[in-house]
Amino acid sequence: MPDGTTERPLQIAVIASSRHPIAEPFAGGLEAHVWHLTRALTAAGHEVTLFAGPGSDVGPGVHVMHVNIFEPSEVARGDVSMPSETAMRDHHAYLTLMLELAADPGRFDVIHNHSLHYLPIAMAPALSTPMVTTLHTPPTPWLESAMTAAPHPRCVAVSGHTARLWEHVLGPTPVVRNGVRIEHWPEGTGGTDLVWFGRLVPEKGAHLAIEAARLAGKPLRLAGPRSDEHYFTTMIEPALDDQIRYVGHLGHSALAELVGSSAATLVTPMWDEPYGLVVAESLACGTPVASFDRGGIPEIVGADGGILVPPGDVAALASAALAAARYDRCSVRQRALTHCSEDAMMQQYHVLYSEMAGRENIPA
Amino acid sequence: MPDGTTERPLQIAVIASSRHPIAEPFAGGLEAHVWHLTRALTAAGHEVTLFAGPGSDVGPGVHVMHVNIFEPSEVARGDVSMPSETAMRDHHAYLTLMLELAADPGRFDVIHNHSLHYLPIAMAPALSTPMVTTLHTPPTPWLESAMTAAPHPRCVAVSGHTARLWEHVLGPTPVVRNGVRIEHWPEGTGGTDLVWFGRLVPEKGAHLAIEAARLAGKPLRLAGPRSDEHYFTTMIEPALDDQIRYVGHLGHSALAELVGSSAATLVTPMWDEPYGLVVAESLACGTPVASFDRGGIPEIVGADGGILVPPGDVAALASAALAAARYDRCSVRQRALTHCSEDAMMQQYHVLYSEMAGRENIPA
Repeated sequence: MPDGTTERPLQIAVIASSRHPIAEPFAGGLEAHVWHLTRALTAAGHEVTLFAGPGSDVGPGVHVMHVNIFEPSEVARGDVSMPSETAMRDHHAYLTLMLELAADPGRFDVIHNHSLHYLPIAMAPALSTPMVTTLHTPPTPWLESAMTAAPHPRCVAVSGHTARLWEHVLGPTPVVRNGVRIEHWPEGTGGTDLVWFGRLVPEKGAHLAIEAARLAGKPLRLAGPRSDEHYFTTMIEPALDDQIRYVGHLGHSALAELVGSSAATLVTPMWDEPYGLVVAESLACGTPVASFDRGGIPEIVGADGGILVPPGDVAALASAALAAARYDRCSVRQRALTHCSEDAMMQQYHVLYSEMAGRENIPA
Repeated sequence: MPDGTTERPLQIAVIASSRHPIAEPFAGGLEAHVWHLTRALTAAGHEVTLFAGPGSDVGPGVHVMHVNIFEPSEVARGDVSMPSETAMRDHHAYLTLMLELAADPGRFDVIHNHSLHYLPIAMAPALSTPMVTTLHTPPTPWLESAMTAAPHPRCVAVSGHTARLWEHVLGPTPVVRNGVRIEHWPEGTGGTDLVWFGRLVPEKGAHLAIEAARLAGKPLRLAGPRSDEHYFTTMIEPALDDQIRYVGHLGHSALAELVGSSAATLVTPMWDEPYGLVVAESLACGTPVASFDRGGIPEIVGADGGILVPPGDVAALASAALAAARYDRCSVRQRALTHCSEDAMMQQYHVLYSEMAGRENIPA
């Protein structure tokens, strides 16, 4: 943190998934977000301790907490109430984490929760350390129950869309958009091909991007983890040819290079994406988007970042891609700088943390 | 509590099931136990607050806590992760309870947990009020996880059998048998009929008691709630005649009268009953038992209380019933007085509570 912002660095515990590691290549946007946030906090001089899936690697200076693995005994395993091994393990991992935090009140100044599990929220009121939860999803039953039971849980939402979905429980909730590190997504020169990137799962709709690219008569390059092998082999692989190419699950710089050298990015969620990190990343590269108009995406795209079409309308997406490709890449990147840069996000979190930790708040 | 045992009455929170009311007629042995314990604590001059299912009625002087009912919103209900309504409600009820207890540290001196839900154990370490859990069951996955995660959870077991089943997690655990209020189970005159009482569910094996009664050539009277209608209509009802009679779900005094006027009680668990309250109640009435030899039952029956036979051996149970019927009813009742009376149990709990509350321990 720049000099003078606080007396001493903050001790920050960041809670992520007990299952997915925070390491490149990322399992998804949430993991990427936590990775960047953690790095930025460390770079700002804070002491960050990360709770995340085994195999997490966030680079030097970040402590990674051990995830407790629960092995039910034979008698417990034999009980009629035995739930899935995974549910049991997640539960136990978060339970031991929260009990450790409760047992060591002075250890952290603030806890920043990004997990989708209910236990951190349920048990936070029993901790003396202040915790803020970033809402990355719509209400799920477990999260909603915990948010309802906990007195005034402190939350921020990744989009106005997500904040509205939680309003019936939390009332008005401040929005802090997931920022992208602009310098990690250099403005690209663009190109003639279209690009689609993200996890290759049905709800991300890559198969519709393929249809749209064919209609637009443009080559398409797809990048991302094959997170749903059945979906990939049935819906994606058969469609691959010299025009539609899968270039694999790329590391950060290769991905940035791919996006920056594309004419436009196709964004095809089959559900109301709470945020849409791929949109922010594409804009940062100066690559305009053609996207289904749903979830938090319109808030990121705005007027300069690309063109929105009705969800599922592949023909509209095809012409939107062609039109968006003609956008001025410089103003597209500008949109990212002003609306979803990591600096903007960090500034908001600094203010929030200082307030939580009872520090005088001098914005970074 | 008798004069001089403590400076002032203890403020005790008793946690039972969020679903089953603690009221007559009882859903099961656990509910009956909590009812008696709560009454005895109040009679001893303590201030008891009970958390239990709606409809609980433990008589004057006992405060009953409100159970929070959770209604998931449409959006949450529509989420793929929506669990069963019941699981969700139990979870939310215990969560709000534990958060209320955490928010009001000075309210209680001790918390006595009888629930089978993991949340009280999971969240107890975050409370400043000491809590003791009575282990009424073998390890279940959720309970085992919580017991493993929580640092040194304070527990007592209802039998040596149950204590041994938890030893791998808790180490040696003191045994406090569920006591029965001897004066509520007056010594009966006995009779010629056999009796079976308890919840009419497959795992209690009433259908085997019917077989044994036929083999013994003795009339059998069955009493208890029809907790499993399918089991009752297929396994019990068809067997009823002038010799085998179902007398309904009786209130306390009618049940005591029934048991006291029987020659012997048949006890037929299909699983390792952690305790077996019906055995203690039968002994108190002076009615010997013929029981399957499993779980915590042998610890209660001893040498004077009845005869144990191999689990499932109906023929052996039949002859055991005839032989036990000849036992001296006075020594049977004596067995209850010395081994499973409420006074004996209360004395142990008084000592435990005083220690937990940091009171000078003068046994009642």
